Amino acid sequence: MKKSEISQAQSRAAQILKESGIVLTEEEARNIEVADFGLEQLDVQGLELVTYINTDRYCAKELVLFPRQTCPEHLHPPVGEDPGKMETFRCRRGKVFLYVDGDAAAGSLKAIIPAGSEAYYSVFHEIELHPGEQYTINPGIKHWFQAGDDVAVISEFSSTSRDEYDLFTDPRIIRTPLMEEEA
Amino acid sequence: MKKSEISQAQSRAAQILKESGIVLTEEEARNIEVADFGLEQLDVQGLELVTYINTDRYCAKELVLFPRQTCPEHLHPPVGEDPGKMETFRCRRGKVFLYVDGDAAAGSLKAIIPAGSEAYYSVFHEIELHPGEQYTINPGIKHWFQAGDDVAVISEFSSTSRDEYDLFTDPRIIRTPLMEEEA
Repeated sequence: MKKSEISQAQSRAAQILKESGIVLTEEEARNIEVADFGLEQLDVQGLELVTYINTDRYCAKELVLFPRQTCPEHLHPPVGEDPGKMETFRCRRGKVFLYVDGDAAAGSLKAIIPAGSEAYYSVFHEIELHPGEQYTINPGIKHWFQAGDDVAVISEFSSTSRDEYDLFTDPRIIRTPLMEEEA
Repeated sequence: MKKSEISQAQSRAAQILKESGIVLTEEEARNIEVADFGLEQLDVQGLELVTYINTDRYCAKELVLFPRQTCPEHLHPPVGEDPGKMETFRCRRGKVFLYVDGDAAAGSLKAIIPAGSEAYYSVFHEIELHPGEQYTINPGIKHWFQAGDDVAVISEFSSTSRDEYDLFTDPRIIRTPLMEEEA
């Protein structure tokens, strides 16, 4: 990603959080993580994150999604003695279509699978989250999620985050480095 | 606490969260925890809580404080193999005066120690939190906190909560039951 694209996405995410009543420090706003997963189509497959705290016991983040932006399918594997990240997504704003392993609903998906990446989306048990609603994903469960036609904000409460171990279905994906300082 | 006092505090806390842009489900709003710690002076020493999730790995809550309301001094001890609760307080709204074990600031405290309970406040290292600011408290560290002259909202991210094991400095305090359904 170009540095200008990163900083534009940071400003946009900061503005969305501000409008949602979520206050960041200036340093946090400056350091919003912009992840395009190496796919170079940030608005389609990407995610903006603020990590408030990540200790060896727990983690808390805000996730921002632009309209129809998708966090690609992945799972959190065991890492050493850690059985893998367990996470709770709480929708704060907008609408989120979350997909996990399990029975697919009859009819068409509410999410739009990113064109050209269809092969890398394989779980279709649909959960629709509105503000105030939440869902907990156990370790090892494949999942992906997409905002509705408007922006979405999700609070993520979880065990320790070790993003560099995440396993993505799409082999083209590079999760780290999340943001190339030199780009 | 009388049932009417509990439901009044629940409504007030729900309103504060709503004004802060924090959306609760109806069920969450109905079940807001009102803790007076058995001291029967809720507005002076008390706390309102929404627990979003509490697993054996992590926990997330919103805490609401009325103006100058104080959560009394306590610590989180080890429980079995758990080294004790570690928690991060993130101020979302208002001003929070947090006190932990450590050097006291010179001059007077910004908080007002609840009259008649002076003997049960013993740690005075002062941290002032504004919206967007946060502080992490390690297990076993005595702490207490108070809102400023306005209401305050704090997001608490932590390891597993086992409130019933909390050790309060004030021996009169009963942490559980948090809310007597029959009261």
